Order: sequence, then structure tokens, then C-alpha cells
Amino acid sequence: MANYQVTPLVQGLPATVPFVGPETQERLRGSAFRARVGANENVFGPSPRVIEIMQSRAKEAWMYGDPEFHELRIALAEQLEVAPENVMVGEGIDGLLGYIVRMFVERGDAVVTSAGAYPTFNYHVQGFGGDLHFVPYHKDHEDGEALLSAAKKHQAKLIYFANPDNPMGSWWDAGYVESMIKSVPEGSLLILDEAYGEFAPAGTLPPFDMDNCRVIRLRTFSKAYGLAGMRVGYAIGNQELIAEFNKVRNHFGLSRLSQIAALAAVQDQAHLNQVQQLVQGSLQRIQQIAVDNQLKPLPTAANFLTIDCGRDGDYAIAVMKGLIERGVFVRMPGVSPLNRCIRITAGLPGELDFLEETLPEVLKSI
Amino acid sequence: MANYQVTPLVQGLPATVPFVGPETQERLRGSAFRARVGANENVFGPSPRVIEIMQSRAKEAWMYGDPEFHELRIALAEQLEVAPENVMVGEGIDGLLGYIVRMFVERGDAVVTSAGAYPTFNYHVQGFGGDLHFVPYHKDHEDGEALLSAAKKHQAKLIYFANPDNPMGSWWDAGYVESMIKSVPEGSLLILDEAYGEFAPAGTLPPFDMDNCRVIRLRTFSKAYGLAGMRVGYAIGNQELIAEFNKVRNHFGLSRLSQIAALAAVQDQAHLNQVQQLVQGSLQRIQQIAVDNQLKPLPTAANFLTIDCGRDGDYAIAVMKGLIERGVFVRMPGVSPLNRCIRITAGLPGELDFLEETLPEVLKSI
Repeated sequence: MANYQVTPLVQGLPATVPFVGPETQERLRGSAFRARVGANENVFGPSPRVIEIMQSRAKEAWMYGDPEFHELRIALAEQLEVAPENVMVGEGIDGLLGYIVRMFVERGDAVVTSAGAYPTFNYHVQGFGGDLHFVPYHKDHEDGEALLSAAKKHQAKLIYFANPDNPMGSWWDAGYVESMIKSVPEGSLLILDEAYGEFAPAGTLPPFDMDNCRVIRLRTFSKAYGLAGMRVGYAIGNQELIAEFNKVRNHFGLSRLSQIAALAAVQDQAHLNQVQQLVQGSLQRIQQIAVDNQLKPLPTAANFLTIDCGRDGDYAIAVMKGLIERGVFVRMPGVSPLNRCIRITAGLPGELDFLEETLPEVLKSI
Repeated sequence: MANYQVTPLVQGLPATVPFVGPETQERLRGSAFRARVGANENVFGPSPRVIEIMQSRAKEAWMYGDPEFHELRIALAEQLEVAPENVMVGEGIDGLLGYIVRMFVERGDAVVTSAGAYPTFNYHVQGFGGDLHFVPYHKDHEDGEALLSAAKKHQAKLIYFANPDNPMGSWWDAGYVESMIKSVPEGSLLILDEAYGEFAPAGTLPPFDMDNCRVIRLRTFSKAYGLAGMRVGYAIGNQELIAEFNKVRNHFGLSRLSQIAALAAVQDQAHLNQVQQLVQGSLQRIQQIAVDNQLKPLPTAANFLTIDCGRDGDYAIAVMKGLIERGVFVRMPGVSPLNRCIRITAGLPGELDFLEETLPEVLKSI
């Protein structure tokens, strides 16, 4: 029947979704989650000013967005104290990761990441035929030295490193990251994913050095800015490196309203500060709930808490499934030994009440 | 300085924007356009109900969108009388074209299109290293027979064909397209771009045959539905072919609000009918303006009018530039002999008043 023929590379790829969305799970369950604390979204939402601006400018939806993201790039550059030419905006970090992989990876090219780190990056690498080399976490931290030496050994084109890390919530200080950047082997590029950077303690994010071509940094409006649904990420890097995106990106891929929302979000740093505090409070409460249930919360620099359930992966899966069945959407790391944990996003008070009520039931039932 | 190394393919690509946005031109001009009739947007906008729903649901922006587009695919499938498995949604037709090219084209693979047809498709083909073979238009129509014989000759993986056509506004009836689909050579896939399909006369769009693997059809919310700024396109095709998107797409690439807006738009077909009538009225007026200025409007089945300026490309460029300088955003075809024309999108009455006033000045000044 098939008349067409996809490329040999695509023929060999699995049809997949890196993350099953909560909506899919709700359809399977037949009812909505009572706590949506699984996707590291920001339940506190965007700034009220952002929502107002989206509402008042919704009628502009008939116009294509600016393919150069002019105003947004200027606002980001001012905030970060870099030039607009050092910033590229894209369809979330996911979209930018896809472009970066496409820019650097041909079939058989080596790429290094941590076993259990962000699966969407792996999806893109596989999608372009790259060879993934995995480095284990060390004490629940991504292991910078091991990543670099694997990159050197395999002559990796790309090294993926998230700080703070997802799914563990662990982090390194800026000095560690800077010395890592200095040691990136010739021919490699470090992807420094700082999606959770705004939640991290001061001293976590290194200063920008836009002369440095060994690193590209990724940030997002999906987490601290509360705009996951608008799909806006941005890359920060050397001007020539950033210009490479213009060879491959979908120029009109970003919604006009997304640009409007992101711009308004950058301009309301007071709301960001408020969110940071709300997240801290929520995480403390989840920590307490974990402790009350004899589970061990790990330290976190993100908007989620990773909780060591104290046994093996099967046990953590049972905890996760028990929570999901009862209406608490959570996720967990996919790789041993990280998969002894479950991961819970900072939630609203009512959601945490429900978690507090549900978790003991789940643990008892296993 | 450069530590990193992009792939040889990407090294050879130009940094480009397939279309310079009107915002860029406004920044260069130092003032806003008085008539935005160059990008084939729908100046009449989306349904008021769509805007209302976007406003009332803007607060959901903190949640990721459904990566399966469940509700939207079901609504589209119902409307088109196909199965949801025959429909894939993406970041505009531009995004879907990028995915299709990636799925089918490796370096050196042949691809056939018309000289002067949609440049963003060519951008994607070049971006994946495909070899573009161009077939000339015949009497301002895409030449189906010539496209097919070029595809056969070059063993093309993809054939691009738009009906109605952009930038000429010409079209073929459904019978012509159906016989074209029947003759797609083994190993080729016909991309049937129906972005302007809702504006075309009855009998232009062939019925759906979801067993057929020789064609994939593309439609959009950017034109008749007035949602260019939300970036929602969709592909319709054989279920197995549609499933291939799941191997390469950016699952979370589409804004949640875009999905909400598109769903509401499908559900307001009355507004679509109204837009179709408004567009017809506007095109008639532009036709009259062209005739009054001794220019020759071409027949159109889209929401724009292509106007033969009666001389060579340099003359048409001068007309276009004169209009742009005076505040009328228009575009024109890029390839001879199509480039004797300028292209004007259906506009609001005030915009057409301004066009009517400006065009004679421009022609006089050349």
C-alpha cells in the first residue's frame, strides 16, 4: 500500500511521545486530576498583567508574529545585559533543543548526556541519528567531570547539562559550571539547560560570557514565568552561534500572542519574585508531607521536589501509580538508581491538602 | 574562535528569513503601515467567539498544551469526515512542511516544485540538503503534468503543489487534482497545500481518500479562520503516513491557547462563511482599483489578488516599493515571468481607500 518512502533514518525511529501529557492520562482515567503537580508547570500562573495583556491583545491573533522576535529579544537582552544578537527565541526549550541537535548532529555523531536526564533531548538526538552516550549521575547530581571526559573520549558534538537538574532538583554552584565550561573539549558544545534557573539560590547561574563559543544556555517562560502553555524558550550564546538558528528555524513558528505574553512577563519581575516565594513555601510543605510519611525529600533548586521513596524502582512506580489513580498527577525519573524517587511539582494549597490526604493511603495500600 | 562545529550541511546554508515580516519593514521605515495587505492574513479576523474564548481561557497559559491535540483533531476529523488518526496538527503549515521534508528528504534527494511557488517549502528542502527541481508555471497556473513528469524523471521524494496557488491565486478543479494524485509516480509523495482552500469555488477541493498514500494535504487556521498569529496548521492523510509525524515532531510545540482558539474556530462555521463573503467583496473592490489604474487583475480563488502590472519585474518592483514607501504593505512573486505582478491581500474598507488613493500616485511617480 505504501507508495511513499520515509528516509532510512526515520524508518528506524519509534513513534513516541517523550512525555505523556496529563490530558491523555485524564482521558484514560475518565476524570480530571485533583492535583496537577507532575509536569513542573507553575501552578501559580503568569503575572495578572500578562493575562490582562493577552486578553486585550487577543484580537491581534489574525496577524503573524514577528519572525525576528524584535521586542522580546531586546527586552531579554536588556534584562540579561547581553546584546539582542546573543538571544534567540524558539518554540520552548524543546523546540530549541531540536534546532540545536539538527545544527550539530549528523548520523553517527556522538552526543553525551546523563542517564536519566531530560528525555526530550534524547528524542531529538535519536531523531537526527546521533549516538547517545550516557554518564551516570553521581550522588543524584549530574557529573560534570564524567560528562566532559565522555565527551572527550567519544568526540561528542554536544554535551547536555541541566543546572538545576531535572528530574533530581540537584544543582551546582556557578564556579563549578564555569570550570566545566572552560574544560569543554575542542569540537564540542555544552548545552546548559537553565530551565529552572530562576528558582535556584543566588550563585547558581554563572555570569554571561558572550565571547565563549563552548556553551549555549537555554531558558524558558514555561517555569518561573508561568507560561508553559505559550511555548516560549530562549537561547543565549555567542552571536555567531545564535545566528546559526536562522538557517534552520521555523521563522513563523512562534505565536504572536506568545511573544506578547513573554514580553509582558519579562517586564513584571515583581511577580516573578512573588512566584519564587510561593514556590518555596509550597516546596517546604511537600517536604513536610514527605517526612511525615517517612519518605526522604532531596534538596532542590527547582520548582519541584524529588522524593526518595527508600526502596527500588518498582516501589516508586507503585507510589506514583497510586497517586495518579487517586487523582494526583506526578512523575518520576526513568532510570536506576534515580527511579527510587517520585517527583512532585510545587502546587496550590488545595492540591497539597489532597496530596497530604492521599499519600498515606497510597503507601498503606502498597 | 569557533570551538563548535555545525554539520557540513548547515555550514553551507545561508542565514535567511523566507519572508521579511511587515514589522521589520515598519522598523526600517520608522512608521507603521496604513494598510497591512501583504501577507495574506485575514484582516477580518477570527470569530468574535474565538476571541472571547481566548480571553476567558488566557489564565490557562500556565499549563502545557495537550501534545496529542485530542479535542482539536476530533473536531477536525468530524468536520472533514475522516478519522482523528488521519489528522495531525502542527506549528502552522510551515512547521508541518519542515517535518514532512525531514521525514522524506536526505542529502541529495530530489524534490519537485514550481519556480516561484512557496519559498518556505524550498527553505526546508535546502535545509535538509534536498535537490530542488523547478518546473515553470504555465499561463500563471502550476503545471500538474510537468510537475509529475519532472518527479518521474528525477525520482523525486516530494512534489509540492498548492491549490489554490500562492502567489498567483490561480486554481484547478478537483478533477484535475484527482487525476494528478492518481499519477503520482511510485516513490513520490504529493504535498497538496490547500492553505487557501476555504476561499476557493465549490468543486476545487477533491474529496478525501484516506486509503491513498500518494498525497498529504495541508490546511491552516492562518487564512480563512483568521488565526495566523496562533500558528496552527494541520495535515490530512493516510493514517500510517500521519503517524510518521510522531517520530519527529516537537510534541509540545503548539501553544495551549492556539489549540483552544483553533477548536473554537472550527466550531464557528457561520463566521467562516461571513469572512468568505467579506473577502469576495474586498477582492472585487481591489479588482476595480486595478482596472481603474489600467492594471490587469488575475482571476483568484484565494484571499488575495495578483495584479499584472503589464511590464517587467523591475517595473512591478517599483510599484511594490512605491506602495510600501507610502504605507501599503504588499508583496510580489519572486520569479520571472510571475514577477510582472504584485499581490494584494483582501483588506478592510479603510485600507482599500488608502490603496485607491495611493496607487495612482505610485504609478505616476515611476
